[in-house]
Amino acid sequence: MKKADIVIVGGSAAGIEAAITARKQYPSKKVIVIRKEKDTLVPCGIPYIMGTLGSASKDVMPVGLLGDAALIVDQVTSVDREAKSVTTAGGEVIGYDRLVLATGSRPVVPPIPGANLKNVFTIRKEIDYLEQLQKALSQAKDVVIVGGGFIGAEFADECRKMGLNVTIVELLEHCLYLNCDEDFCIQIEDKMREVGVQVNTTCRVKSIVGDESVHHVECEKGLRFNADVAILAMGVVPNIELARDAGLEIGEQKSIWVDQYMMTSDPNIFAIGDCAEKFCFFTGKPTATRLASVATREARIAGANLFQSRRRRNRGTIGVFATMIADTAIGVAGLTERASRDLGFDMVIGEATAVDRHPGTMPGAKELRVKLIFDRSSAKLIGGEACGGITAGEIANVMAQAISAERTWDDMAAAQIGTHPALTASPLVYQVVNAAEEAVAQLD
Amino acid sequence: MKKADIVIVGGSAAGIEAAITARKQYPSKKVIVIRKEKDTLVPCGIPYIMGTLGSASKDVMPVGLLGDAALIVDQVTSVDREAKSVTTAGGEVIGYDRLVLATGSRPVVPPIPGANLKNVFTIRKEIDYLEQLQKALSQAKDVVIVGGGFIGAEFADECRKMGLNVTIVELLEHCLYLNCDEDFCIQIEDKMREVGVQVNTTCRVKSIVGDESVHHVECEKGLRFNADVAILAMGVVPNIELARDAGLEIGEQKSIWVDQYMMTSDPNIFAIGDCAEKFCFFTGKPTATRLASVATREARIAGANLFQSRRRRNRGTIGVFATMIADTAIGVAGLTERASRDLGFDMVIGEATAVDRHPGTMPGAKELRVKLIFDRSSAKLIGGEACGGITAGEIANVMAQAISAERTWDDMAAAQIGTHPALTASPLVYQVVNAAEEAVAQLD
Repeated sequence: MKKADIVIVGGSAAGIEAAITARKQYPSKKVIVIRKEKDTLVPCGIPYIMGTLGSASKDVMPVGLLGDAALIVDQVTSVDREAKSVTTAGGEVIGYDRLVLATGSRPVVPPIPGANLKNVFTIRKEIDYLEQLQKALSQAKDVVIVGGGFIGAEFADECRKMGLNVTIVELLEHCLYLNCDEDFCIQIEDKMREVGVQVNTTCRVKSIVGDESVHHVECEKGLRFNADVAILAMGVVPNIELARDAGLEIGEQKSIWVDQYMMTSDPNIFAIGDCAEKFCFFTGKPTATRLASVATREARIAGANLFQSRRRRNRGTIGVFATMIADTAIGVAGLTERASRDLGFDMVIGEATAVDRHPGTMPGAKELRVKLIFDRSSAKLIGGEACGGITAGEIANVMAQAISAERTWDDMAAAQIGTHPALTASPLVYQVVNAAEEAVAQLD
Repeated sequence: MKKADIVIVGGSAAGIEAAITARKQYPSKKVIVIRKEKDTLVPCGIPYIMGTLGSASKDVMPVGLLGDAALIVDQVTSVDREAKSVTTAGGEVIGYDRLVLATGSRPVVPPIPGANLKNVFTIRKEIDYLEQLQKALSQAKDVVIVGGGFIGAEFADECRKMGLNVTIVELLEHCLYLNCDEDFCIQIEDKMREVGVQVNTTCRVKSIVGDESVHHVECEKGLRFNADVAILAMGVVPNIELARDAGLEIGEQKSIWVDQYMMTSDPNIFAIGDCAEKFCFFTGKPTATRLASVATREARIAGANLFQSRRRRNRGTIGVFATMIADTAIGVAGLTERASRDLGFDMVIGEATAVDRHPGTMPGAKELRVKLIFDRSSAKLIGGEACGGITAGEIANVMAQAISAERTWDDMAAAQIGTHPALTASPLVYQVVNAAEEAVAQLD
């Protein structure tokens, strides 16, 4: 029987990061990663395979990332917690001291009639499958994307870059509505429409229609959209079968329950990434924020805690998102106004808009808007949204640092910032600071 | 006698921001700003007038920034603290309840022979003067820039964009050496050389030589550089004459002493910006960090404290810098390794390099390197440097938030971040987080 100090099941973002962290923190420990695929894709890069990158081979994780952790390409079929070993489809039995489950998630396949027609795709993290999707798109004229979250919107933008006639069908009132407030959603929807994407919100799909292959998508209220290809981007479900069969506790969000140290109900087994339960930073309640950046953070926490338990604590997930549609980037950290209201927060909100270079006559200057949400009772920052040029991505990280550190409105209004004409807004109007000042001004 | 609740002397970044903040915090208070110039320049934009913007008129502060604060174009010549009034060169006497001194700084004119020759310029924040400089540059072939700090380096980059033959002469071992560690300085020097700037460090100017107009610059060790124009970028001295004559306390750094609430030794007078004493966040000792972003922060603190003293506290200046030379941006927050050593810190340092998009095949991807400096005894982040593409500017602000909030190495190694293929590094290799992880790995 093979044996390693640390066995990691799954080798996408979470699994790889767990291996890297474990090797750094415990250089003397032997690490084995077991995953189904020899090569894995950079998950966030998947939409960009279609137009920007042009091929799945350009979106493969560098093999060197795993360092000297051993890689076994196989599928784990069961865990024996008594014997502290896993068994693979290939018949191997591998012992562990610590086991890390990073089994990920798979796309939701909704119970819509016609979802099994040819040229109807979900978004699987599989090279062959995505190559089929890309081939189908290259031969298509009309594509319908069901689901206007981040992934759906990114696919829409890529498909229109390929010259396709693109329609988004979103059930909720707005695209990105689970992660952004209405005003920011509208800004992104306007941008999508400006570049030629047809955006249909509050629109429920009734069926996907075709003979052998999809022909059109039928929605309620008599709407009907032609489709040579349909892409279903309706979220993911965690892969928990292995954990459930091994008797590990499953959480409210149907993912593997973990404590604040990423430990499952078995102290020798950790779970991270899309398969692991997440808890909200603001409420402590289970939440469904499944992102590669959340997964890698959990991996860094679990990786450090494997043999020194409780070294790093997960105080809960803030949720930091970013995307770019055409020339417009958006970054979001923490709670939206809508989510804060649903959770019962009494809010103080400030907004500021300014160009992202200074003076505004600098080449490439682009308007960038920031909204900050503070909790009135504690004065703490609980959420922020930024929309504009490409620095919105890192501005989300500025806001995320501030939220994590529980900075108050006065901290933020007097924040120490650096500015430069070619890189940021002017110090007089720096958006994150000015939005905080606007919030403070509402207190008096 | 005119009278206002708040009189602000000086109307560049600090003065304007103080007016804006005071109007926001105390909407019923009347504000008067007195400054010498009708229009003021965006101070950080000054180098970019030369090549990128093409004229000083494109670098003027929008007049609307002052809002409904009254503007008087005049020069304040004295302060009567008993009568609580100021007198101007134009003969006006203006009463105040609270006075804010934002009198700024002026360029150092070094005692170098020939510094008064024609076509030898310092960097004054004056439109006419800068137009003369620009005209002289447009007729020049060779330009020598004395001083390779941020402003000198930015002028060098702009002058080479104008097609000039540019030489930097820097007294210290490296350009930017007061604000960046050697390895980052070298990266920027290499970039300057790559785009054709001649960089001479550890090089002392002996004299500036010419007849009526400058002809060349003579340095020690027999070095001699042709110059149709010489620009002296050797730092600034605070304008404290008004405060000194009024009997206000002057600090160690020859600027107006203030407490942590930006109040001078007179409780009715506040001082902010380049004329005000600064104290180091890490040591509490006086420091000479004069930046527009520091000035506007002090203005936001003073502005809030004017009638509600001690509402916002200045816990000390971190110092956050950013610049861009050709296609390479650099951002710095807090202490460098060299400064930390000089202050006696026992450091733990981590570094990480990765492309700033992901996968690395994304268009526009550029390598970006981050170095983080932690204090071993407290585990807290005390400094960071980032060099690469334009997001280095906002990454400096991510680091500045973390430093302000006294985040530890484990906080940073498990930081909550957002990532996106077109906007940031991959979550697996996000530089700020990985640099922290490298620091942690050195502890064991």
